[in-house]
Amino acid sequence: MPTVKPVPYADAPPAVRAVYDDIMTTRKVDWINNFWLTLAHHPATLKRTWESVKEVMAPGALDPLVKEMVYLAVSASNNCEYCIRSHTAAARKAGMTEAMLGELMAVVGMANETNRLANGYQVEVDERFKQAP
Amino acid sequence: MPTVKPVPYADAPPAVRAVYDDIMTTRKVDWINNFWLTLAHHPATLKRTWESVKEVMAPGALDPLVKEMVYLAVSASNNCEYCIRSHTAAARKAGMTEAMLGELMAVVGMANETNRLANGYQVEVDERFKQAP
Amino acid sequence: MPTVKPVPYADAPPAVRAVYDDIMTTRKVDWINNFWLTLAHHPATLKRTWESVKEVMAPGALDPLVKEMVYLAVSASNNCEYCIRSHTAAARKAGMTEAMLGELMAVVGMANETNRLANGYQVEVDERFKQAP
Amino acid sequence: MPTVKPVPYADAPPAVRAVYDDIMTTRKVDWINNFWLTLAHHPATLKRTWESVKEVMAPGALDPLVKEMVYLAVSASNNCEYCIRSHTAAARKAGMTEAMLGELMAVVGMANETNRLANGYQVEVDERFKQAP
Amino acid sequence: MPTVKPVPYADAPPAVRAVYDDIMTTRKVDWINNFWLTLAHHPATLKRTWESVKEVMAPGALDPLVKEMVYLAVSASNNCEYCIRSHTAAARKAGMTEAMLGELMAVVGMANETNRLANGYQVEVDERFKQAP
Amino acid sequence: MPTVKPVPYADAPPAVRAVYDDIMTTRKVDWINNFWLTLAHHPATLKRTWESVKEVMAPGALDPLVKEMVYLAVSASNNCEYCIRSHTAAARKAGMTEAMLGELMAVVGMANETNRLANGYQVEVDERFKQAP
Repeated sequence: MPTVKPVPYADAPPAVRAVYDDIMTTRKVDWINNFWLTLAHHPATLKRTWESVKEVMAPGALDPLVKEMVYLAVSASNNCEYCIRSHTAAARKAGMTEAMLGELMAVVGMANETNRLANGYQVEVDERFKQAP
Repeated sequence: MPTVKPVPYADAPPAVRAVYDDIMTTRKVDWINNFWLTLAHHPATLKRTWESVKEVMAPGALDPLVKEMVYLAVSASNNCEYCIRSHTAAARKAGMTEAMLGELMAVVGMANETNRLANGYQVEVDERFKQAP
Repeated sequence: MPTVKPVPYADAPPAVRAVYDDIMTTRKVDWINNFWLTLAHHPATLKRTWESVKEVMAPGALDPLVKEMVYLAVSASNNCEYCIRSHTAAARKAGMTEAMLGELMAVVGMANETNRLANGYQVEVDERFKQAP
Repeated sequence: MPTVKPVPYADAPPAVRAVYDDIMTTRKVDWINNFWLTLAHHPATLKRTWESVKEVMAPGALDPLVKEMVYLAVSASNNCEYCIRSHTAAARKAGMTEAMLGELMAVVGMANETNRLANGYQVEVDERFKQAP
Repeated sequence: MPTVKPVPYADAPPAVRAVYDDIMTTRKVDWINNFWLTLAHHPATLKRTWESVKEVMAPGALDPLVKEMVYLAVSASNNCEYCIRSHTAAARKAGMTEAMLGELMAVVGMANETNRLANGYQVEVDERFKQAP
Repeated sequence: MPTVKPVPYADAPPAVRAVYDDIMTTRKVDWINNFWLTLAHHPATLKRTWESVKEVMAPGALDPLVKEMVYLAVSASNNCEYCIRSHTAAARKAGMTEAMLGELMAVVGMANETNRLANGYQVEVDERFKQAP
């Protein structure tokens, strides 16, 4: 169980309920997952986090599937079980196939390996990599 | 400077030179960046790491641009300066625009934030997120 | 279950029991939590860790509530379930309200986000931030 | 140098300039630090991040000094040089003494140590720590 | 349960079965642990990861016990429960005593503490530490 | 430069000087490296950290070379430049050859990769790995 009490829809004050409604409308779902129910413990954090996630994950120069896979990649690297499970589900819903998931995890693993080799040997940054475009 | 001596092409033993040649051929470039020159300190690590990276980063179910952006996302999350700079350059070469980089970093930042909110409150995983497909 | 056998009070050798007694006296409690029971697997680590924690967490220039909240912030950031749960409890005991916990987690989340934005873009440190006082 | 071009005030489009102005007004300073100049590469990220930081760091149930110290603690734990230097400066400006900084770093170090001891031995969470209040 | 379906030996295609057979032969065991059964979801990752682990963990300039302890140290530091439990078991099988485990965890804890003290204060690298041999 | 003023031997108060003397005597060196000079900003942290490091790194069930390599492995994984450089030097002084360093980094890289594969797929811990000895 979480360290704070989640706030079910039925008990939510109007400001929290408004966020819940926007989540369901935006995502075209009829339930609220535990992440938001738990954040509602601190309504300002619920509202700010939802609005940020909504803006950041909207289609743009990157499509939603790529964004979900990047989210999953970071969550796998940081070991957040909740985020790994919820974003694996979200990425699949957005079209991620099993082959794509396999390649995604392979890249995540490889990046974590070479990050430590580069840092562990204190590899010097090449001059050519130092310019902004 | 790195903690070990990089091995320039001219001084490389044949096994190392063969890896260097394969890197340049595969990537269609005429130079070797410091990461590989430094790994050559331990030739078995150079060869294994290059062959793994070559396999993992090849086009497949995910295209090379997505793979480069995922690599950059993980490296930014882990704070590997070498990897951030080299994969920002590689992603741009593979077609990443400035708008895509902006959205990528926004997702990385958001994932790092929500990873800690989920862990910090010990949010319980929803039953619906627990099934494999 | 842990990877080593915890040492219950009844079975503890005198050196371990002395640490357990000091923990209970210092904290004014009548039980020993699993962290210390497990560390007792290696008595030198138990003793050194307890003495360090006792010294570091004592009231000083920072009051105990602030120290507990900082401990919780780091533990949430690192994702140590045991530490998150035990220090959430300890911080509440020291006076942390639910509103304070909400703001604390908000700061932890925000710091984790901006840490990656600063590193991900390799933001240059301003000259004004480089001086020691 | 950063991986993207910072946007100086003189070259900033109106939407970016509005954020810069709000930063200077809110913080009562007459310059913009590199973090914001660099984020301006992606104006939506600049605006959203500033508004979030402004809201999260405002006085509330926790005072600004505590918030700055928590920010610094997380940044030290994650090793973000930019954030360590800028928030050490900010915390001092908010009243952090050298003794407070010393105790803060001691708590950060100790939390990082015990987080790994708890995880490394897979210490079991005590039943008493599992309840929300 | 994992986010993908593990592949039991009976259902494994020949390429996967060949890796399973090599794991059992190399390790002189008659079962396959869940890590490999799960990686088999993406056969290329299974094969590449096994071949890399087999090469890296073979006796060389470092003996297998030291390698297992280093693996455990990194896993404890990163908080990978699966890896902590499997490599604690593997290290014990390779000869790690309880006293050795106690000292190993003490070093892991201490390194995590001093890493943050060095980064948190931005300690300057001594000139004498900057030379490669 | 560090965020606090290092304390040179000549300016050190007696309590700090006593620690410096013990460091030089214990390590049989005639200089103090920046880590300790910087920690001296907070004498209690200097003294506690030194005494802990001295105890933890002393010969025991593990020899000093193994301990130095584990310290380096954790520091490489966490990306602490100061610690990587100082413990690479210390490990070499304790007898680490270049071949040993190469194998050590290979294990560190591999552990970081498989930690993320195990977490990223949420691999289930095998029953056989759950028992303490």
